[in-house]
Amino acid sequence: MKKRRRGTARRMSELPRGDAVSGAAGPESTPVVPEVSIFAYTDDALEEKKETALEGINAYRDFPGTVWINVNGLGSPAAIERICMLYGVHPLIIEDILSTNQRPKFEDFDAYLSIVLKMFYLSDGGDEVITEQVSIVVGKGYVLSFQEKPARDVFEPIRAALRAKKKKLRKYGADYLAYSLVDAVVDHYYVILERLSERLEALEDEVLESPSQATLQRLHELRNEIIFLRRSVWPLREVLDKLGHQDDELIQPTTLVYLRDVYDHTVQIMEQIEVHRDIVTGLLEMYLSSVSYKLNEVLKRLTIITTIFMPLSVIAGIGGMSEWTMMTGGAGNWHLAYPLFCLGLAAIGVLTYVFFKIKKWA
Amino acid sequence: MKKRRRGTARRMSELPRGDAVSGAAGPESTPVVPEVSIFAYTDDALEEKKETALEGINAYRDFPGTVWINVNGLGSPAAIERICMLYGVHPLIIEDILSTNQRPKFEDFDAYLSIVLKMFYLSDGGDEVITEQVSIVVGKGYVLSFQEKPARDVFEPIRAALRAKKKKLRKYGADYLAYSLVDAVVDHYYVILERLSERLEALEDEVLESPSQATLQRLHELRNEIIFLRRSVWPLREVLDKLGHQDDELIQPTTLVYLRDVYDHTVQIMEQIEVHRDIVTGLLEMYLSSVSYKLNEVLKRLTIITTIFMPLSVIAGIGGMSEWTMMTGGAGNWHLAYPLFCLGLAAIGVLTYVFFKIKKWA
Amino acid sequence: MKKRRRGTARRMSELPRGDAVSGAAGPESTPVVPEVSIFAYTDDALEEKKETALEGINAYRDFPGTVWINVNGLGSPAAIERICMLYGVHPLIIEDILSTNQRPKFEDFDAYLSIVLKMFYLSDGGDEVITEQVSIVVGKGYVLSFQEKPARDVFEPIRAALRAKKKKLRKYGADYLAYSLVDAVVDHYYVILERLSERLEALEDEVLESPSQATLQRLHELRNEIIFLRRSVWPLREVLDKLGHQDDELIQPTTLVYLRDVYDHTVQIMEQIEVHRDIVTGLLEMYLSSVSYKLNEVLKRLTIITTIFMPLSVIAGIGGMSEWTMMTGGAGNWHLAYPLFCLGLAAIGVLTYVFFKIKKWA
Amino acid sequence: MKKRRRGTARRMSELPRGDAVSGAAGPESTPVVPEVSIFAYTDDALEEKKETALEGINAYRDFPGTVWINVNGLGSPAAIERICMLYGVHPLIIEDILSTNQRPKFEDFDAYLSIVLKMFYLSDGGDEVITEQVSIVVGKGYVLSFQEKPARDVFEPIRAALRAKKKKLRKYGADYLAYSLVDAVVDHYYVILERLSERLEALEDEVLESPSQATLQRLHELRNEIIFLRRSVWPLREVLDKLGHQDDELIQPTTLVYLRDVYDHTVQIMEQIEVHRDIVTGLLEMYLSSVSYKLNEVLKRLTIITTIFMPLSVIAGIGGMSEWTMMTGGAGNWHLAYPLFCLGLAAIGVLTYVFFKIKKWA
Amino acid sequence: MKKRRRGTARRMSELPRGDAVSGAAGPESTPVVPEVSIFAYTDDALEEKKETALEGINAYRDFPGTVWINVNGLGSPAAIERICMLYGVHPLIIEDILSTNQRPKFEDFDAYLSIVLKMFYLSDGGDEVITEQVSIVVGKGYVLSFQEKPARDVFEPIRAALRAKKKKLRKYGADYLAYSLVDAVVDHYYVILERLSERLEALEDEVLESPSQATLQRLHELRNEIIFLRRSVWPLREVLDKLGHQDDELIQPTTLVYLRDVYDHTVQIMEQIEVHRDIVTGLLEMYLSSVSYKLNEVLKRLTIITTIFMPLSVIAGIGGMSEWTMMTGGAGNWHLAYPLFCLGLAAIGVLTYVFFKIKKWA
Repeated sequence: MKKRRRGTARRMSELPRGDAVSGAAGPESTPVVPEVSIFAYTDDALEEKKETALEGINAYRDFPGTVWINVNGLGSPAAIERICMLYGVHPLIIEDILSTNQRPKFEDFDAYLSIVLKMFYLSDGGDEVITEQVSIVVGKGYVLSFQEKPARDVFEPIRAALRAKKKKLRKYGADYLAYSLVDAVVDHYYVILERLSERLEALEDEVLESPSQATLQRLHELRNEIIFLRRSVWPLREVLDKLGHQDDELIQPTTLVYLRDVYDHTVQIMEQIEVHRDIVTGLLEMYLSSVSYKLNEVLKRLTIITTIFMPLSVIAGIGGMSEWTMMTGGAGNWHLAYPLFCLGLAAIGVLTYVFFKIKKWA
Repeated sequence: MKKRRRGTARRMSELPRGDAVSGAAGPESTPVVPEVSIFAYTDDALEEKKETALEGINAYRDFPGTVWINVNGLGSPAAIERICMLYGVHPLIIEDILSTNQRPKFEDFDAYLSIVLKMFYLSDGGDEVITEQVSIVVGKGYVLSFQEKPARDVFEPIRAALRAKKKKLRKYGADYLAYSLVDAVVDHYYVILERLSERLEALEDEVLESPSQATLQRLHELRNEIIFLRRSVWPLREVLDKLGHQDDELIQPTTLVYLRDVYDHTVQIMEQIEVHRDIVTGLLEMYLSSVSYKLNEVLKRLTIITTIFMPLSVIAGIGGMSEWTMMTGGAGNWHLAYPLFCLGLAAIGVLTYVFFKIKKWA
Repeated sequence: MKKRRRGTARRMSELPRGDAVSGAAGPESTPVVPEVSIFAYTDDALEEKKETALEGINAYRDFPGTVWINVNGLGSPAAIERICMLYGVHPLIIEDILSTNQRPKFEDFDAYLSIVLKMFYLSDGGDEVITEQVSIVVGKGYVLSFQEKPARDVFEPIRAALRAKKKKLRKYGADYLAYSLVDAVVDHYYVILERLSERLEALEDEVLESPSQATLQRLHELRNEIIFLRRSVWPLREVLDKLGHQDDELIQPTTLVYLRDVYDHTVQIMEQIEVHRDIVTGLLEMYLSSVSYKLNEVLKRLTIITTIFMPLSVIAGIGGMSEWTMMTGGAGNWHLAYPLFCLGLAAIGVLTYVFFKIKKWA
Repeated sequence: MKKRRRGTARRMSELPRGDAVSGAAGPESTPVVPEVSIFAYTDDALEEKKETALEGINAYRDFPGTVWINVNGLGSPAAIERICMLYGVHPLIIEDILSTNQRPKFEDFDAYLSIVLKMFYLSDGGDEVITEQVSIVVGKGYVLSFQEKPARDVFEPIRAALRAKKKKLRKYGADYLAYSLVDAVVDHYYVILERLSERLEALEDEVLESPSQATLQRLHELRNEIIFLRRSVWPLREVLDKLGHQDDELIQPTTLVYLRDVYDHTVQIMEQIEVHRDIVTGLLEMYLSSVSYKLNEVLKRLTIITTIFMPLSVIAGIGGMSEWTMMTGGAGNWHLAYPLFCLGLAAIGVLTYVFFKIKKWA
Repeated sequence: MKKRRRGTARRMSELPRGDAVSGAAGPESTPVVPEVSIFAYTDDALEEKKETALEGINAYRDFPGTVWINVNGLGSPAAIERICMLYGVHPLIIEDILSTNQRPKFEDFDAYLSIVLKMFYLSDGGDEVITEQVSIVVGKGYVLSFQEKPARDVFEPIRAALRAKKKKLRKYGADYLAYSLVDAVVDHYYVILERLSERLEALEDEVLESPSQATLQRLHELRNEIIFLRRSVWPLREVLDKLGHQDDELIQPTTLVYLRDVYDHTVQIMEQIEVHRDIVTGLLEMYLSSVSYKLNEVLKRLTIITTIFMPLSVIAGIGGMSEWTMMTGGAGNWHLAYPLFCLGLAAIGVLTYVFFKIKKWA
């Protein structure tokens, strides 16, 4: 348990440290180009390739249809830099692509648009949310996409659609392809939200029925995860809003409708996150109330026990005095006196209890 | 109880998963057209029909007056798609109509406006709020409306008004009809609000007089329902604001006044929800205060009992020592000593109690 | 107490249910015109009349100066409808006038402006805030005003001023008269605020000195009243803002200065309400803290009592054993042993108490 | 203590009651002009005068340089009205000057600007914040200033500067003089803020070390004072913002820079107040946590005492039975049995305590 | 511990007191010029100098490339004033440079821009955040920078870069140099944030496992530090926003992209601070919940002890009566009766405990 908790605060602050002065501190050695997948297609033709040589990539520079270059993994920064430079991408954008802790961001250079997104996965256990940065550069006739981690590939369905000659995707060009990539990323958020809902629901029961320190800790973790998610989605909303109202020849009006649709999804996701945050805040308050209530219950039990037995204790003490024995007629009378005394004690106890019940104190 | 609670968190996240790539993944088989009610009317004539064939619907395409096509139930998506295509509705809007977890939404295509609303019902027990999606498409001379669930029909009064030749409704055309539909939906919100008020009121008493775990749970549920409602109404406000300031030939200026009136209603509903939220938050705080106060009361009782009887217990213990018997003159004197001793105990007890009362400690 | 509480939640939701379809569902019978007071005045002449016949009212339609028609009580809707129709008021505005749960509202039709306000009274006991709706319609040369409840009349001072030939009022025309009516309503808010202040002040003392369940309930009620007030004043601010920047020939520039002054008052009232809300929220938190503190005090008392007497109880128990008697030399020595024993007990008790005092535990 | 508290709520609502109808209800008797100080200066000449006659004031109407008329104390409203009328000030502004509970306010009439400010003093004891209203009217070549309370004079340094021929002040004219007056008022706020900081700091220690009811009350008072301050400074910010962007020939561009500087100060003061509010809110929460923690400590002590001595009490009781005496060999063996028994009791007690220490329960 | 706490409230209010009237109250004596470092460079040449004479500085007034004058330490205000006057800086800006408690601020005079920033250091122990004010003035071909404390120098890397002929820095001119300075300051914020994260993380564990008064105090301190940071960064965001959208010939378009990048960093830092604030607020709530939970645990222990032993105490008391001895057959039977009695007591105790365990009360 302890292991997992470690880091909720730290994870939240994995921040990049830009280095303004260093500039393009590029290594001088010839870079190893990572495996790069290229899709070049027109309305009726499709070329698909895995390419590692820069020249191979360069060959598609003037492809008449749409070219999609996808880099999976940011392992070789120098190679990525080269690819970007092929398409004249600004050094600051390259920096953004490589430093994986950017917030979602949209930048409009005249010749191309750059989009930085956050992708979310559930860890294999399903208990942790893992982040991956996805950067997209869209220009006239080309899309560059960069995924942080090579292990997962969220764009497979889009490749399938391209191969399957989905009409819209093949016909609408680079801007629609970029939209499809963004949409694939945003769609994944719903999975995370659903998992959050399930965990919230489980905690709802726990808080009311058996609140413990572990519940509190889980609530705290969940809350921090929601805060974390919120921080990532919030700027995304802005990014998509700008994108959906782009007055630019790079994005065709037909695509704008689709982009506004993704924007609507983001707003919905955002609202959903806010709702979850409200609920988890409510649960934290309920935890306190629930614990207080249980405190009350325990204390009531303590009070009733004390109230019943403490007077009895005093009376028994008085009865233990030898004077009592004398009063009740000494040794001779005890056959009567002693059981009566005990009965009296019991009666007092019962009466006290009944009194408490009537007064609704117990 | 448990059953009902299950799901407050989950219900809040019934989110659609759009599928950008799938596009118009329409089935190829000829669709069964669901029962569709058609009202075609001019100022002085009214045709009313139940139609299931697409051709029948198509026949009204060029009706000179206003045509209202209402589809009750989203059971056959393909048919709905066909109907929409008859009127040239954009695929994304069709998707919105069919995926029933949209947030309220307004889209202005030049040839028509599309409105997605949320309808609220109380369940038969009256304890649960049920949601239904209502989508409306208004164009030149026609209104398409789609209700999610066939069981309930909120538009009956409007049909009655049409048949009764209500002047305004018959004369003002498609935009006024659309307003009437929206208004019918919004008006239903007041019922939900009233039910919420009643439940809040009942909880107010409960919190102050007999706060229990069940109270806490009910408060939590109510709060979540209010959050849920709020989330649905908030975008509606925006939708109606846009609608009421539509500068478009589809909506006549005379209708705009009415639309702004519905907008005012939505604002009022929104404010009402906020007030309810404030009250329920206040009640949750009061619950905690109330429980703490009761804790105090219980503890005071415990303290007074302990303070009275614990010293007596010690004294009785001392009195139980045989030395006491000796001191008080042994067996001979006990007729006097013993009752005095008991009286003394009682006096000490009473004095302690009086002392506490004077000090306002009990 | 219980009676009064009933309804804090319900009162907050007395919402109108507009009926879009019903339209002008006017009764066909000739309506009884309620007693209506008419003031028709120019700079130097004043005609004052009580009129019940519609024709009488109609006669003032073309009065050369300013006509003020005031309807006290909304008892006869049909009559009010007729009067409004005389002046060409839009059906929706008539609906607003008649349904008494509107939020403050301003509507600018070109020929006239319509203002809906909320008036607040203190109930006779002074403990409850009562609402009344006041609607004003201002046109070229006329003002129509409608008060919900006939019993109270807040406009009497204005009538007096008219009769007394107050120069400004008589000279400035309909717009200044309307301003005077609005100002009379807004001025009354200060009375309510003052009463709230007094109640808050009384509760401040109560919370710190003797917090009880009744205090909590009073705080809750007060808070709800403030929320309620806030909800009514908030839109009023907006109404007066629009009114004070009206660029219209209906409102003369000289009057605008006065309207902006009322607007300033509303802002001040609003801020005042916010301050009260902050204070009452603070008091609710203080209540909890105060109760917790008192809990602490009670518990300290309990602990000190327990700590002093419980060990004594054990020692007395040990002293009660016959072995003790033997040890202390049996019956012979008790003259010395017994008082010493008792003294020892007392000493232990006192020492414990002193120890606690030194440790600041008691 | 009680005395001082009285009024936190009431003070917050000393609101003016404007009277729209009464208009200029001026008294007809010739007013006594209060002592008025006049500074009339040009770049190189300075005339300083105390004047009580209206004619004397009137004489400066056409002074070629800058005239500053300062009225200290609002004792004679009629006289103030006269002075204002000399300079053509609007009746509403005169009303604002005279009713001392205005919020900070800026009004731009073409011929002059009117500014209403709040001045804050510390009471002589230094524990209370006292408010004074300062109104300033700036026109072409003249400044009128009105201070509510004659006792204090915050403008003395400015007089000194004028007499000392401070170049900027003497040269820049009426607008710069007005700026200097405003700046003198705003500068005083820092004194109040510093006093607040000191009180906060003292309370920080108190809350953590010895939270008592008095602490709670002091926190409550401090919080209300901060709310009060905030309410006064907030509109001031707006006033100075408008003033600093005045596009008017009354304010020269060189002065605008200075006005924006005062605006920056106000923003800083506002932020400071917000920070204080956050801290005091935090302290109120800490108070509760601190009290709860101490509760815990007390309860732990109670538990350990109970756990140690209650079992001993039972055992001692069992030991007091005559059977025990018999079992341990009667009177003969007690020399051994009794000390052993006592030792046993002590051992059990110590073991319990050790057990608690190991478990970290005590 | 106490020492460190002193001052959280006070530090937050180190506010400047501007003095409007005093104006340029410059001393008449010839000022000692502090050590000033000058960098004068063009694309291919670099002159670096330490200069203390004003004439030396003046010599660079018409340098054809870019001149950077850095003053480390504000010890000699008069000298700084002189340097600023060389470049025609407005007196108000000089005042801002010298009073070290300005909030971040941007002012656009036509001939130059002035920027005031806050720099943050960790104290040597790493537990405290130290502030330093950095002011930058950028004009055509020159940058003036002023650091409050001479001890630390954050600009060393930039000097190194200049000496190393970093192309961009040397070529882009004064505006890019100014950007580099700002960027160097902003980059340092990440160090502070990281330290905050570590402290938060440590507190997370502490709150859940062993909440103490010290934890509460540390949380309080941390929260105040975050509030303090937030206050400094918030206006910075605004400053950089204005700077990044400067439509001015002083800032070249190529530099604007970089400035917007720093702006993005500030937004990210701001969001990070907000997240930290949320977490620390959550921890404060958790502290209370955690303490309440532990209270519950303690109380449960108390209750179980009381419930087990108090009845036993009464029974033992009854058993101590001589009648019991008689009933059980007097001295003869005790061999059987006494052990049975003791066993009975133990059995009752164990049963009570088992009962509590089954009921989940212990």
